[in-house]
Amino acid sequence: MRAITIREGELVIEEHPDPEPGKGELLVRVRAAGLNGADMHQRRGRYPAPPGWPQDIPGMELAGEVAGLGEGTERFAVGDRVMAIVGGGAQAELAVAHERLFMPVPESLDWPEAGGLPEVFVTAQDAIITQAELRPGEHLLVHGGAGGVGTAAIQLARATGARATATVRREELRAQIAELGAEAIECEGFAEHGPFDVILELVGAGNLPENVSSLAVGGRLAVIGAGAGAKGELNLLALMGKRARIFGSTLRARSLEEKALLARRLEHEVLPLFDAGELRVPVAATFPLEQAAAAYERFEAGGKLGKIVLVVQ
Amino acid sequence: MRAITIREGELVIEEHPDPEPGKGELLVRVRAAGLNGADMHQRRGRYPAPPGWPQDIPGMELAGEVAGLGEGTERFAVGDRVMAIVGGGAQAELAVAHERLFMPVPESLDWPEAGGLPEVFVTAQDAIITQAELRPGEHLLVHGGAGGVGTAAIQLARATGARATATVRREELRAQIAELGAEAIECEGFAEHGPFDVILELVGAGNLPENVSSLAVGGRLAVIGAGAGAKGELNLLALMGKRARIFGSTLRARSLEEKALLARRLEHEVLPLFDAGELRVPVAATFPLEQAAAAYERFEAGGKLGKIVLVVQ
Repeated sequence: MRAITIREGELVIEEHPDPEPGKGELLVRVRAAGLNGADMHQRRGRYPAPPGWPQDIPGMELAGEVAGLGEGTERFAVGDRVMAIVGGGAQAELAVAHERLFMPVPESLDWPEAGGLPEVFVTAQDAIITQAELRPGEHLLVHGGAGGVGTAAIQLARATGARATATVRREELRAQIAELGAEAIECEGFAEHGPFDVILELVGAGNLPENVSSLAVGGRLAVIGAGAGAKGELNLLALMGKRARIFGSTLRARSLEEKALLARRLEHEVLPLFDAGELRVPVAATFPLEQAAAAYERFEAGGKLGKIVLVVQ
Repeated sequence: MRAITIREGELVIEEHPDPEPGKGELLVRVRAAGLNGADMHQRRGRYPAPPGWPQDIPGMELAGEVAGLGEGTERFAVGDRVMAIVGGGAQAELAVAHERLFMPVPESLDWPEAGGLPEVFVTAQDAIITQAELRPGEHLLVHGGAGGVGTAAIQLARATGARATATVRREELRAQIAELGAEAIECEGFAEHGPFDVILELVGAGNLPENVSSLAVGGRLAVIGAGAGAKGELNLLALMGKRARIFGSTLRARSLEEKALLARRLEHEVLPLFDAGELRVPVAATFPLEQAAAAYERFEAGGKLGKIVLVVQ
C-alpha cells in the first residue's frame, strides 16, 4: 500500500507492506483522513505516535470501508462505512485498528466529512460535555472558534441547549461562525461578554487571568490547546472565589479502553445528531493523499474554517 | 446575651439582645465555637459575614443545646446536642440558624470537639471526597497538614482507604501528624514523595508548579487556602499532559441550600466514623469566651496541632 511517510521532517509518499488485522482488529480501506494540529508537531518530531502504532506514517483519524476482519471481530462486516481515532497511520491507503475504536459513519455524511469528524467531535464532546458538564441554558466561550474543535464545540453547545460565544481572530470568518450558532467576537476584551459557565481554551495561556475572572461562579475552564503559549499566571484566590475548576486534557496518550469508551459515547450522544441535521462537519478543503505536503501547508497557514482532509481515491 | 463583638479590629465582650428563632430556625445555647482562619480576616475587616447573618459577632461554627424552636421546625427537640456551620454569630451565648444547617453531635464527642468539628470536616470532605473524588488506594498529599482542615483531611483519607502524605513546616508536630495516619514530610522537595492522585493545597501558590508536576495522570489539585501567596505560574501543557484538574473552593459564600446539603453529606458519610473510633477532632487548646482575644492570638501564633475552641460556661 502507499502511505504518507515522514522522512526527516518531509512528507513523502512511499510503498509499505499492507497491514494485516490481528485478533479483534479491522483492516480498513481508507477513504478520507483529517489533519490535526498534532500532525504538524509529529512531522517535526515533537509528538511521536504512542507505542504499538505506525511511527513513520502520520494520521490520527480516518474514515473508510471495512476490507478485512481479524479473528474474533463482531461489530462490523466487510464493506461497512466506519471511522475512528487512531494512534497513527491514518494517512495511508490501508489501516488497521481494534474494532472497538470504530464507529459507524452516519448515512448523511460523505467521506471527507466522515474523515474529519472523529478527532474534533470526540475532543469537543469529551471536553465540554463529559468533563466540563455543559448544561442547557449555560453559556460557553470558545477561544479559537474557527478551528476544527472550535466549530464542533459551538455546534455541540447549541445542540444541547447552551448559548455559545467564540473568539475568532480573523474578521472574515466571523459570519460563518455566526451561522454555526455562536456570537463571534474579537479576542480583545472577551471578558465583557461573560460571565461564562464553561470556557474552552484552544489558544494558549495568555487568556488565563481573564478566563478565570470572566468565569461564572462554579465555572469550568477546559484547556485543550496551548499553542500560543503554555505558561500563564493563575490567581488562586480568584479561583477559590469563583469555586471554579480548570482542567487540561489530551486524547492521544489515553489507553485503548479509554478511547473505545470515547467512541461509544460519541455513537450514543452525538452521532445521531448528524442525520437529524443538527450537526455538520465543516470541511475547508480536501487534498488527494499525494498532495499531503500541500495539505499540511494549507493547515498551517490558518485562516480556514473547519477541517483540511486528505482523500484517497 | 453576651457575645464577642468586633469593635474597630478589637475583640470585646458585649451584651446583645437575645436572638429569637424565626420560621424553621433553632435557638441554640452555644457551648463551644471553633476558631477558623476566616475569623482572623473578618476581625481585620477583610472578610465580612454574608448578608442575613450577624455582622459584628464573629464565629462560623458552633456546638450547643437546642434552647428554642421556631415555627415549623421538625428535626430536633429542646435539649438536643447539635452543631453547625453558620454565616456568623457563633461566638456568643446564644445563636439562631435554620434547622437544616444543624447536625446531631456524635455521642462520643465532648463540647470542644463538637464545636471544632463542622468547618474543618465539612471543608475536608467537600474538597477531597466530594469534589476531588479521592478513592481507596489513591495517594493524597496535604500541604499544611497540621492545621484543622489538614488533620481532618488526613483522617478522612485514611478512613476511606487512601494513603496520606502531609507537608508540615514545624518539625515538632510531625510525630503527631504521623499518629493521625500520614507520612509527615518537609515542604522542600515534596514532589519526590509523589506522584499524588489528589493534592490539598492549604498554603499558597508557591507550590503550584511542583504541585502540577507531581500529580499523577488524572490527578486533582484542590485549592482551599492561599494565605502564603495567591499568584503562581501555571503550565497549561503540563496540565494537559497530566489530564489533571485544579479547582478552588470556599464554603462561606454558598447558599443556604448548598450548606444544608453539605451538612446532610457529613451526617451520612462522616459523622458515623466518630463514634466508630475512626475519626477524632484534635483540639489544641480551649479558651473561655471571655478570653477570645487570647484565643485569636494563639490561633495566629501557629505551631498548633488541631483546633482552638472557645467554650461558653
